[in-house]
Amino acid sequence: MAKVIRNIRRTDDAIVRELGTLGVATVHEAQGRRGLLAPHMRPIYRPAKIAGNALTCEVAPGDNWMIHVALGEARPGDILVVTPTSPCDDGYFGDLLATSAKALGIHGLIIDAGVRDVATLTEMQFPVWSKAISAQGTVKETLANVQVPIVCAGCLIHPGDVIVADDDGVCVVPAENAAMVLEKGCARERMEEEKRLRYAAGELSLDVNNMRPKLMEEGLVYVD
Amino acid sequence: MAKVIRNIRRTDDAIVRELGTLGVATVHEAQGRRGLLAPHMRPIYRPAKIAGNALTCEVAPGDNWMIHVALGEARPGDILVVTPTSPCDDGYFGDLLATSAKALGIHGLIIDAGVRDVATLTEMQFPVWSKAISAQGTVKETLANVQVPIVCAGCLIHPGDVIVADDDGVCVVPAENAAMVLEKGCARERMEEEKRLRYAAGELSLDVNNMRPKLMEEGLVYVD
Amino acid sequence: MAKVIRNIRRTDDAIVRELGTLGVATVHEAQGRRGLLAPHMRPIYRPAKIAGNALTCEVAPGDNWMIHVALGEARPGDILVVTPTSPCDDGYFGDLLATSAKALGIHGLIIDAGVRDVATLTEMQFPVWSKAISAQGTVKETLANVQVPIVCAGCLIHPGDVIVADDDGVCVVPAENAAMVLEKGCARERMEEEKRLRYAAGELSLDVNNMRPKLMEEGLVYVD
Amino acid sequence: MAKVIRNIRRTDDAIVRELGTLGVATVHEAQGRRGLLAPHMRPIYRPAKIAGNALTCEVAPGDNWMIHVALGEARPGDILVVTPTSPCDDGYFGDLLATSAKALGIHGLIIDAGVRDVATLTEMQFPVWSKAISAQGTVKETLANVQVPIVCAGCLIHPGDVIVADDDGVCVVPAENAAMVLEKGCARERMEEEKRLRYAAGELSLDVNNMRPKLMEEGLVYVD
Amino acid sequence: MAKVIRNIRRTDDAIVRELGTLGVATVHEAQGRRGLLAPHMRPIYRPAKIAGNALTCEVAPGDNWMIHVALGEARPGDILVVTPTSPCDDGYFGDLLATSAKALGIHGLIIDAGVRDVATLTEMQFPVWSKAISAQGTVKETLANVQVPIVCAGCLIHPGDVIVADDDGVCVVPAENAAMVLEKGCARERMEEEKRLRYAAGELSLDVNNMRPKLMEEGLVYVD
Amino acid sequence: MAKVIRNIRRTDDAIVRELGTLGVATVHEAQGRRGLLAPHMRPIYRPAKIAGNALTCEVAPGDNWMIHVALGEARPGDILVVTPTSPCDDGYFGDLLATSAKALGIHGLIIDAGVRDVATLTEMQFPVWSKAISAQGTVKETLANVQVPIVCAGCLIHPGDVIVADDDGVCVVPAENAAMVLEKGCARERMEEEKRLRYAAGELSLDVNNMRPKLMEEGLVYVD
Repeated sequence: MAKVIRNIRRTDDAIVRELGTLGVATVHEAQGRRGLLAPHMRPIYRPAKIAGNALTCEVAPGDNWMIHVALGEARPGDILVVTPTSPCDDGYFGDLLATSAKALGIHGLIIDAGVRDVATLTEMQFPVWSKAISAQGTVKETLANVQVPIVCAGCLIHPGDVIVADDDGVCVVPAENAAMVLEKGCARERMEEEKRLRYAAGELSLDVNNMRPKLMEEGLVYVD
Repeated sequence: MAKVIRNIRRTDDAIVRELGTLGVATVHEAQGRRGLLAPHMRPIYRPAKIAGNALTCEVAPGDNWMIHVALGEARPGDILVVTPTSPCDDGYFGDLLATSAKALGIHGLIIDAGVRDVATLTEMQFPVWSKAISAQGTVKETLANVQVPIVCAGCLIHPGDVIVADDDGVCVVPAENAAMVLEKGCARERMEEEKRLRYAAGELSLDVNNMRPKLMEEGLVYVD
Repeated sequence: MAKVIRNIRRTDDAIVRELGTLGVATVHEAQGRRGLLAPHMRPIYRPAKIAGNALTCEVAPGDNWMIHVALGEARPGDILVVTPTSPCDDGYFGDLLATSAKALGIHGLIIDAGVRDVATLTEMQFPVWSKAISAQGTVKETLANVQVPIVCAGCLIHPGDVIVADDDGVCVVPAENAAMVLEKGCARERMEEEKRLRYAAGELSLDVNNMRPKLMEEGLVYVD
Repeated sequence: MAKVIRNIRRTDDAIVRELGTLGVATVHEAQGRRGLLAPHMRPIYRPAKIAGNALTCEVAPGDNWMIHVALGEARPGDILVVTPTSPCDDGYFGDLLATSAKALGIHGLIIDAGVRDVATLTEMQFPVWSKAISAQGTVKETLANVQVPIVCAGCLIHPGDVIVADDDGVCVVPAENAAMVLEKGCARERMEEEKRLRYAAGELSLDVNNMRPKLMEEGLVYVD
Repeated sequence: MAKVIRNIRRTDDAIVRELGTLGVATVHEAQGRRGLLAPHMRPIYRPAKIAGNALTCEVAPGDNWMIHVALGEARPGDILVVTPTSPCDDGYFGDLLATSAKALGIHGLIIDAGVRDVATLTEMQFPVWSKAISAQGTVKETLANVQVPIVCAGCLIHPGDVIVADDDGVCVVPAENAAMVLEKGCARERMEEEKRLRYAAGELSLDVNNMRPKLMEEGLVYVD
Repeated sequence: MAKVIRNIRRTDDAIVRELGTLGVATVHEAQGRRGLLAPHMRPIYRPAKIAGNALTCEVAPGDNWMIHVALGEARPGDILVVTPTSPCDDGYFGDLLATSAKALGIHGLIIDAGVRDVATLTEMQFPVWSKAISAQGTVKETLANVQVPIVCAGCLIHPGDVIVADDDGVCVVPAENAAMVLEKGCARERMEEEKRLRYAAGELSLDVNNMRPKLMEEGLVYVD
């Protein structure tokens, strides 16, 4: 039995927006190096950088019917996250669905499958992270679930989790961790900013981070 | 015995041009979802969009001799379609051959192998869809066939078939289907344009396509 | 025991610079089609074109400690060449290390693993050729060697060898061959320039290279 | 903070055993085609067929420390399920750990990474489903979680879920569904046994399943 | 419109049988190194060696309906050759279909997709060459063509062509070439048998094939 | 200019033999986790376990001529190690060459490319570790070097280095390290034997290796 869960709790917009500003690498570090989707998830154009609430959607292989259903659940600020129930590279999503998604306020698409009409999506500036680009169309025959927890590109994603995506890939932050990850991420960024200035001035990271004693202790040898 | 077939029947220019305007996704749908080359065939730069008559060319692995022979058969408006007789990612084609191809009026290259000098090809705006980018050069030792039916990236292609290629990939339309596919593709485009306007205005695809009754019939359940 | 070899002999700057102008495809041909790194080594942005002295660095899987050590050995004009001791796609290098590398005069990074912060690296115009883009961070726990001979993406590279990298990939020229390869590469380029003009004028490569007699001799048949 | 959750509720032994008898294909169908791990998970020897309770274990890339911790939680009838927190093909598990696992009553190993000593594991008849075979060893530096929900080869697995593995791959049955899936699987098997006899007698599946009317209705045409 | 072509001309049984005895490597050489399916087509058990007439079958991705239709067209000595119209690794074929295929006299299955129940297929000794092993089941919704020319794993195959498959892979011999390829293959085998005896006696292939003069002529240098 | 280096210094037979007994995983550990060829190098049959002196051989892509030359340099106890100068999966080596190699006392083949006639090689018990199995034949046109240092599957191998190969993969031990690696490997094996007995008796590796204090120190928490 396929179901659509409604009235999902979404994460606070301000938190989402600020996580998006930090970007994937910082968020991923701040979260203890968890939540990164597999690196085969690549943006169809660059640069691209978004954040939003996960609107999760399962699809049967070669069948995009449930994406239409998922769009019926969209709220402005959502990111559509689609995973096939069996691996598939077909082009599930194109310019028509993107037109609808954009009109509904969706920030972008994360899909562990294929996408098409990428020239038009690029012109529209509707960002997509996908496993493949393929013109292969899909049918509308089989039900699946919308707004349930899904595994997408190796990560568990709940509806309303925060998705952050940029040129480095895609990261999920569970809703309950969002505030804490944001705090740690901001702290990390401040610390990095400081280092950046010193590196730019020519200081070595060996010195900035005081790495030499530990390197010697571990037995590193310099040979002239 | 290797052979070059001459006096190939080409498809009418006007039809080819219009198929090119439709693009790969529409042409592929209009043709009943057939004729799409494997999605590993990617453009070396984007955006790129061409259509033309297939000028087919087999090559031995690591050997680009027959590409030189194929160029001798070129007519303006052709697209060179190259397939190795055994899988190979070497760089069969570079800026010199592209200079010649362009001078001969060839619209672009489809090659289920590697290509090189891609910076120059991009500057020249000579579009290529390939399996790989590789500087690995090739020899000129072994004969193969030109202008015979070939299998390229999983599709059977006859000389004079229509090739359509864009950022979504590459599609072949058999010459005898070209007029019919064009007609269906244009009809499809008109229908899509109508939907596009309604989606852009915020209507849901569930309603535009009247999907709700069938979803209910199949047993989809909405849970609050 | 891990070691850092100092006082590496570098290749003459003028030679390096001119090899870089020739580009990967020409250098690789001039060197007898040797020294090309595996084609999975792709630039994070295009166009990009660099040449420099190899500053070699081993890293443990998921551990970028030795990159910090390697930066301590940098000389202006070096290219950092990093290889993991076991296959790994993690993001070893990001914008902080790039800031340091750039300040130290390093021309770019070749890494048979992953890289992150690619949007920032692109803005900074710090070029990288890598196997993957991944936000996955690394630890600083394990020693390895710096400025020793390494195998990177299938090629043996000695410290001080010349690295040439562009949109076609990456090529290594052993220091002792650099002058000779440069000479052959320049000769090749002159010869190619001549052909380019004739091709652009519409002459066939079959004629420019006098290929027809050998083709006939091998048994090629033209069928009307 | 890394943790080990104790006193996990395990699934009833009798149910587990019978699910194992059904095998992966039947269990997967009975569960509505859900729960199949990615097909890159292959047995190191064939035939092999096991079922058991999932003992889940995260590991850092290139670090097998937590497998030692997980073995401390083993109960007879468990199957060890290991997933790296970032993709890794290293050989995390060999004959020493297998000796321990076997002594502790563990039925086998499911690991989305590499395994080694496969000749000895085969002699010992300790079955493993893995992504890779690799002699590359691992370190013991980094903590991770044991007996928490994990994503392994694309599937969410909770401690105490039922794992069924055979030559076709690996399937997970959530503990709460185990009894129902068993029932449906047995029913399916009875139905299949009946068909098998009719097929073996030469009857066509078209007739046994009364497919001809629907095929005609869909428009299938027979051409002499 | 999907169709099933009947009354296909099959190749003579005696020729098929003898081509099977020669095996894939010899047949492929005898045919001028053509007709080899892509090397991802691997047998599910070894050793396995068959030959037969191609019974060709298209299937939609994730849909095995047409395999049932194809079995209705089987003649003893056929080999079922299945290709999906879009790439798919699902398990299209299992022990039930194998029971039927065996009862109908089919020699084996070639499928550019997945197969399941491989333990049972191995016990039954029903040989399969496939791209994947996967328990993922399929639906029965979409029509496609049976006994039409198809492209399978990169090769064009007509109904009634000869398929030869063994541990090295799969080769197709067009019906019209079968007799000639058999003749050349037998000649090749006789020649190889002679060489085999001389090699086994310790003679070098350099001498048996008189390679030294050409090696010297090409410039090979022996350095002590 | 292609060359064959003669009078290579080989490693002492007794050391080679004993390294072979230790096997790949132990030798690789004893050598500080270095020298493992990429895990795509898999045995064509299992079990298989050999050791020998590397007889190194470069080949052009799709060209096995130099294997014939290399066989002319064989000494009993050698292992033939072949690497293509550009990636290639063709079947470079079959039963004829295996017959010759066996007659010359060669222990097996390591090839970063394809091999064919694997059913016969299995019957002959001539072991091969390769990247692919493919019936695709090769030509004899292009020279390359024999008995020079080569990079094979990511590792630098000198003629006369020790190759150890078994079901886990392939490892190279530089000739100058062979005695030391053997000594360390034997010590490791004795230590492992002791642990094996304790594990088999049901002792936990946590206790045998006294891991609990360090785990607690790192902060591992047990939760009931």
